[in-house]
Amino acid sequence: MPINVLFAARDDKWETYQPALNTAFEQAGLSVDLHCNFDHPEDVDYIVYAPNGPVTDFTPYTKTKAILSLWAGVENIVTNKTLTQPLARMVDDGLSEGMVEWVTGHVLRYHLDMDADVCDQSGEWVPHYGPLARERKVAILGMGALGKACALALKALNFDVIGWSRRPKKINNIPCAHGDDGLKSTLQQAEIVVLLLPKTAETENLLNAERISLMHKGAKIINPGRGPLIDDDALLSALNNGQIAHATLDVFRVEPLPKDHAYWAHPNVTVTPHIAADTRPNTACAVIAENIQRGEAGQPFLHLVDRKAGY
Amino acid sequence: MPINVLFAARDDKWETYQPALNTAFEQAGLSVDLHCNFDHPEDVDYIVYAPNGPVTDFTPYTKTKAILSLWAGVENIVTNKTLTQPLARMVDDGLSEGMVEWVTGHVLRYHLDMDADVCDQSGEWVPHYGPLARERKVAILGMGALGKACALALKALNFDVIGWSRRPKKINNIPCAHGDDGLKSTLQQAEIVVLLLPKTAETENLLNAERISLMHKGAKIINPGRGPLIDDDALLSALNNGQIAHATLDVFRVEPLPKDHAYWAHPNVTVTPHIAADTRPNTACAVIAENIQRGEAGQPFLHLVDRKAGY
Repeated sequence: MPINVLFAARDDKWETYQPALNTAFEQAGLSVDLHCNFDHPEDVDYIVYAPNGPVTDFTPYTKTKAILSLWAGVENIVTNKTLTQPLARMVDDGLSEGMVEWVTGHVLRYHLDMDADVCDQSGEWVPHYGPLARERKVAILGMGALGKACALALKALNFDVIGWSRRPKKINNIPCAHGDDGLKSTLQQAEIVVLLLPKTAETENLLNAERISLMHKGAKIINPGRGPLIDDDALLSALNNGQIAHATLDVFRVEPLPKDHAYWAHPNVTVTPHIAADTRPNTACAVIAENIQRGEAGQPFLHLVDRKAGY
Repeated sequence: MPINVLFAARDDKWETYQPALNTAFEQAGLSVDLHCNFDHPEDVDYIVYAPNGPVTDFTPYTKTKAILSLWAGVENIVTNKTLTQPLARMVDDGLSEGMVEWVTGHVLRYHLDMDADVCDQSGEWVPHYGPLARERKVAILGMGALGKACALALKALNFDVIGWSRRPKKINNIPCAHGDDGLKSTLQQAEIVVLLLPKTAETENLLNAERISLMHKGAKIINPGRGPLIDDDALLSALNNGQIAHATLDVFRVEPLPKDHAYWAHPNVTVTPHIAADTRPNTACAVIAENIQRGEAGQPFLHLVDRKAGY
């Protein structure tokens, strides 16, 4: 009997994901009936999930063994009270590689003061030399799979990398602080701060006026994590008074970022349109297929979400 | 008896290098008399050399055991017919690290199409996704110490790196072509081409109209090597007809690049003011001190220049 998999995401994703999922299922030797609609919810074995799709009430999916998120961030579903089935988030090599490339690129952009050249080609020859990477302290807030991958890539380029996460972590050669005091000292030290925390009740407005005031004067902020990690008004005042020299923001409370938002017009902000890390259909679908294989074999699912922690 | 070392570089370098050299000599346990002027050239044991300094005729320096260049590029001295003493070029960790950071940064800038965001903050939310680094072919022309270091750093970020050098080279995991045919196929394949060749009679105008026409349509060029590697007129036409999409140029035939040069005004060129890799006084002076130690101990000098090859 084939396995019934419901694709529950925005309509426009179906065209891309239908073939990619079917290929992945075939490669994994799974016999799957994949649809974006089932007449009988109680027949569905697995749900492949992304936000803003058709499923908001999980109650009728009585036989469903797992909800497999296509995205790494699960804040849109984790608080859903009808969700009693196991929930797995996406942890995908493509996603992680894309994030490492984007973060490393923008850290190097700040490190080398690239914009000074890229944005000013007026003919003035003004050599500008900064310190080497090994003399540049970069903090990664959030040392999960993505944060750790970015930290290691930056470390391989000799950056003086420090990490912070809510709970104690141990990562080779990278000092990792935790807790409130750890956050303070991390913010005080770093010239470039990268936000890679999940969005939870505890991380909302993590970068507020008080914490921003602790930061290295003239620090730079890179946020490919989640929009609500930053108190936007606090960041805008800090940019205006020079406490923060520049920010590169990829994620926002409202996306697309409204055209009249102060971030677009601010000379010391680069807005990027949520491109830091895209779920790549090929690699992501292989992860989904692997989790279905595990479910069918009675093995534990990979990347299960801790519902209480929220990620 | 102290060792007599002549500092032969532009006057404005003395202030920086005098203390850095003396510190390095002291740390190496060398007793040195360092001056930017000796009454008797025949007393000079070593010359620390950079272009545009006071020494153009090496004939009177009859006792001098080596000329130790502060720079990696030695084209200004290697053709000097009065030079009969051994010549060592600078191979310095700081120089190499700086180059790796600059090259990696600009390759990632192209790879991520960063300028699309950095230069346009008009409020249009236009997500742009490119391939992952592992799907992006980057060629390094010139696989010497600097080229190899850059190739390995880009490879560590998963880029599909290929190399080319004049003579056959073997480098772990990185396919290295050589010779004329190798150059052709390298140029045909790469989307991003980085020039890290020395300036010699053979490399002058290496990137000429014919070779540029072989390149991947819409390729991008990064030149932190030497200005004369590129036929400037050929590059400008290729930029105008779209054969080359963009170039980032750090070195030029004439520096500072004159204000009215077409490169400054071209929308698809980023001029940077010869900043890709700076000799760092601390690390460079340690290399100079090590070579003097070796000379005094009768050991072979490091980084000797092959006068015939020109580097």
